[in-house]
Amino acid sequence: MTVKTMQTEAVKALLHKVAGFDNNEGNPRAKEIVARLVTDIFQMVEDLDVTPEEFWHGVNYLNELGSNMEAVLLAPGLGFDHFLDIREDAKDEQMGLLGGTPRTIEGPLFVEGAPKDQTVTRMDDGNTPGQGMWLHGQVTDETGAPVAGAVVDLWHADKKGAYSYFDTTQSDFNLRRKVVTDENGYYYARSIVPNGYGCPPGGSTMKVLDLLGRHGNRPAHIHFFAAKSGYKHLTTQINLAGDKYTFDDFAFATRDELVVEATSVSDAAKIAEHGFDGEYLDVEFNLSIIKTDKEELADKHVRARAAV
Amino acid sequence: MTVKTMQTEAVKALLHKVAGFDNNEGNPRAKEIVARLVTDIFQMVEDLDVTPEEFWHGVNYLNELGSNMEAVLLAPGLGFDHFLDIREDAKDEQMGLLGGTPRTIEGPLFVEGAPKDQTVTRMDDGNTPGQGMWLHGQVTDETGAPVAGAVVDLWHADKKGAYSYFDTTQSDFNLRRKVVTDENGYYYARSIVPNGYGCPPGGSTMKVLDLLGRHGNRPAHIHFFAAKSGYKHLTTQINLAGDKYTFDDFAFATRDELVVEATSVSDAAKIAEHGFDGEYLDVEFNLSIIKTDKEELADKHVRARAAV
Repeated sequence: MTVKTMQTEAVKALLHKVAGFDNNEGNPRAKEIVARLVTDIFQMVEDLDVTPEEFWHGVNYLNELGSNMEAVLLAPGLGFDHFLDIREDAKDEQMGLLGGTPRTIEGPLFVEGAPKDQTVTRMDDGNTPGQGMWLHGQVTDETGAPVAGAVVDLWHADKKGAYSYFDTTQSDFNLRRKVVTDENGYYYARSIVPNGYGCPPGGSTMKVLDLLGRHGNRPAHIHFFAAKSGYKHLTTQINLAGDKYTFDDFAFATRDELVVEATSVSDAAKIAEHGFDGEYLDVEFNLSIIKTDKEELADKHVRARAAV
Repeated sequence: MTVKTMQTEAVKALLHKVAGFDNNEGNPRAKEIVARLVTDIFQMVEDLDVTPEEFWHGVNYLNELGSNMEAVLLAPGLGFDHFLDIREDAKDEQMGLLGGTPRTIEGPLFVEGAPKDQTVTRMDDGNTPGQGMWLHGQVTDETGAPVAGAVVDLWHADKKGAYSYFDTTQSDFNLRRKVVTDENGYYYARSIVPNGYGCPPGGSTMKVLDLLGRHGNRPAHIHFFAAKSGYKHLTTQINLAGDKYTFDDFAFATRDELVVEATSVSDAAKIAEHGFDGEYLDVEFNLSIIKTDKEELADKHVRARAAV
């Protein structure tokens, strides 16, 4: 049964009061956003004839989602993070700041405060199982000139796809490090090869993805921030080529330029040089960041983040 | 800065994948609802130029809201419950089932399983402070004929505005009872006078209402379900006249026909008859429920509810 109520005086008056448009207190921007959001959901309820049962199912889902702290995981799964990236790219283009290494989503698993090393760092704590990985590259500007003193902030999962801090069995800041580029823009990080991440089985995000006929997996990847005063802050990540989910990421983070072919290295001298005990993976990723005199672009955007 | 991306192939392709329209698994209704919701929010982000900071503030708010189990409280505060009532009224009108006592919102504080008494009940546990209340009325059908054997399910707050079960200092099912009407449709309940309810200060619902310049209070009220096989289930509540919030309810539940003038009774014989120890409030509320042969309308709608 279809009924149309959105254009009635009763609903118009209700929406006016809901958003606080009949008072002069509060925050005008919050009123604008709430009014739009509530009106859109009312209209959806009407257009799709959403039943009270369906509506309350959704409301109770929100309680469950928040209790599991999964709103930050559902958001990338529903494409919001990637959509914001598309918009930020378009803004960069308008400002003439497009170019360099493409941005991609941050995800919800960054933790503030990782140790910072000069030029070379080791990310694993020595007790983390996994094949060795030698990750390195050069940071340049849009002309190809090296950027010395850039801070490269790295974080990735272990071979179970789990992140330290959120996985409390790992040591503090395991597989999380900052490394500062040398005078030629180079950085080097010893670590272990990460595995892909999967949404918690039976969790709130997975429930929605199941209803949509979708999986909840990400390919093996490594997160990067790259920043220096005078340059536009870069949030990105690389995918290791060959993972079955590289081009089928539930979080829509893959970009062609960010898929990296790693090289297996079995040369004994190289293995000894980096301190590994067997064949390791060499992963090279060079980053290009863009000069700007807009200092407000030099920092990552404000967002609640975990911190130790 | 305004950028327009919604009509790009990139965003269209993203929305298509997000909703799982590229697979044949999952639930078509869930896909339809998610696609609409996500598209609407993308469009809002674009039209209002919602910043990443604002977006992540909203996502983290959802985690907080759910952690506090307040989605069910924010919903009436944003008018959703009342909007659903407006739609249910319109559906009743289409079916020729409008009339009788008006429905109004259930709210999130009903608990399944209250004790059931015949004709007369006592709702308070004898240890609950408050002025005595003698609540009574007749249940009739739309022709005015008495409805015997109707179940009237009553619940209300104490004088602090708190509900048993959610307020764990109260005894089980305090101020919650079912009472079955007698052969002439009458029910009688002894209780104490409730006070209005206020959203938890500093809670997630109050945070939004503050931003909207709104208060989070409800007038003193008493919730009713009235049900009998062969009649349309009624969810309603009455407001006691004279409360400062009667016509300014944050949950938009007040309807003119549901505002009840209570009578103070100081007659010693009446006080003794009902077992009070002083002046009490007599509250009369008669309910009219509508005959229907649609048995699916005889039960309240499905919704997750607390149960003891």
